[in-house]
Amino acid sequence: MEKILVFGHQNPDTDAITSAITYTHLLNQLGYSAEAVALGEANDETRYALETFGYEPLRVITEAKIETDTVALVDHNEFQQSVQDISEVRIFAVVDHHRISNFQTADPLYYLAKPIGCTQSVIYGLYQEKGIAIPKNIAGLMLSGLLSDTLLLKSPTCTPNDIEIATKLAEIAEVNLEEYGLNMLKSGTNVDKLSEVEIADGDAKSFPLRENATFRIGQVNVVDFNDVLKRKALVLSAMKKLATENNYDAFLLTITNILDNNSIGLVYGRKDLLSKVEEAFNAKIIDHELSMPGIVSRKKQIVPPLTNTLS
Amino acid sequence: MEKILVFGHQNPDTDAITSAITYTHLLNQLGYSAEAVALGEANDETRYALETFGYEPLRVITEAKIETDTVALVDHNEFQQSVQDISEVRIFAVVDHHRISNFQTADPLYYLAKPIGCTQSVIYGLYQEKGIAIPKNIAGLMLSGLLSDTLLLKSPTCTPNDIEIATKLAEIAEVNLEEYGLNMLKSGTNVDKLSEVEIADGDAKSFPLRENATFRIGQVNVVDFNDVLKRKALVLSAMKKLATENNYDAFLLTITNILDNNSIGLVYGRKDLLSKVEEAFNAKIIDHELSMPGIVSRKKQIVPPLTNTLS
Repeated sequence: MEKILVFGHQNPDTDAITSAITYTHLLNQLGYSAEAVALGEANDETRYALETFGYEPLRVITEAKIETDTVALVDHNEFQQSVQDISEVRIFAVVDHHRISNFQTADPLYYLAKPIGCTQSVIYGLYQEKGIAIPKNIAGLMLSGLLSDTLLLKSPTCTPNDIEIATKLAEIAEVNLEEYGLNMLKSGTNVDKLSEVEIADGDAKSFPLRENATFRIGQVNVVDFNDVLKRKALVLSAMKKLATENNYDAFLLTITNILDNNSIGLVYGRKDLLSKVEEAFNAKIIDHELSMPGIVSRKKQIVPPLTNTLS
Repeated sequence: MEKILVFGHQNPDTDAITSAITYTHLLNQLGYSAEAVALGEANDETRYALETFGYEPLRVITEAKIETDTVALVDHNEFQQSVQDISEVRIFAVVDHHRISNFQTADPLYYLAKPIGCTQSVIYGLYQEKGIAIPKNIAGLMLSGLLSDTLLLKSPTCTPNDIEIATKLAEIAEVNLEEYGLNMLKSGTNVDKLSEVEIADGDAKSFPLRENATFRIGQVNVVDFNDVLKRKALVLSAMKKLATENNYDAFLLTITNILDNNSIGLVYGRKDLLSKVEEAFNAKIIDHELSMPGIVSRKKQIVPPLTNTLS
């Protein structure tokens, strides 16, 4: 078998990048030849995690076929979030925690998804199942992906299983879970140094939620909403520009306050779709702003209601 | 949570029906409320397995939503092979060993697929993972699904893992693997009592292998090709009738001799598609017959080459 390229989704977050590393380590321990790569640069939060546990940022690729015929996807499955030539390579495995959509293969494959807080918790289970010991730095990366995706275990996507795993990983990684997690999350909230395009699109994913309508949904973490809202007009301009250039029919940027777990949405797009957004969240869009109290999870609190009102 | 209805694919084979039973048993042991049902009547081979291990045929359903909001799929994922109202219920879990296609959910779910010989081997792994003991009759059903799908461990889909599991299951079930397996397979080869429609469609599945083109692919096991070929004209008429009534663009019935693991295809359909069939199998269709030496697996030897030539 050729070398397996392992990667998370485009615009990678901490779970996507660290899961590529920890799943690759597992595959190599099992005798496969695997390499972790990324579909985009690591953000500040991820860099903090990588540095803390002694890893360099991953090599970034834009196509797979020139290097190998075999890939493994972590933390995503939808083709529009994957490498651009995903249809031309064989998918050896998927390890994920998202809904399944816009995904297909010609051959049987290994696929493991669980409805839990992060991909790292799924990968942790695989280490247990295979009886592979988790080294200290791998445990640190697993914990980083877990705490990032669950917003310090407070997201509604977080399950008792995630909490139990986090406790064990913090022990192996020899860090204080709360302290390390808050420092890591905070390291990703300095939006002052980001351009408006980076704020809007840095963590965004596309969802073909209705035929002929692509939704772009981004999320940015802050410790104060005003860090983004003070640049609202410019961020909206950036969203408009991105939508025009890439044919997004609607763009929802979720600004999430990681200290109190509330969000405010910035919204741009086709009128008929925006009225569906209002319906999905049972709130009015006023001057492009949407109040999203208690909403922090794109996967569990944003995509499903939008899917329902749009279908 | 509502009761979980667990079922295999339409036109169920032995792996589909017995997997519904053994996965349901596991879910119930884990504290869920689950019921195994089927999307069609059990065939003779499956009835032999059920009778041997003390089970009644499953209740047959045609829709799920009237009974529950929550379902689990075993041995399939493609919606056109599932219950007709699959889009209207929540998919709690999928346990399978097929390619993934025409499948999507709005929410995260549990999904486990492995590229191995049968769904029962995947379920066996889940019993191990959860530490649930396998009772004698459940082991017998697992072994039946395994030996049916792997044609007595001889199909190219059969992996070393399947062989190892089969040996353990035969021990728990207290049967001789070879003897029981051959008796079970033979019990399903009496085509004399089947109508031509039953021969053609009894095990058939639909595959949307190209936009606007549905392939119907059936398989019937025999101990002598002539058991079917002596009724060739009538079987072809039945295939034509089924294709017309259900808008199949092409129909391939694979007649498989379980004693020597060779097949002959009977083919009906649109000319442009039939030339793709010839290309896929590198053989000429002569008088609706296609020689398929060494081909026994729809999943591994029929669908992938057709997918490749048609895409």
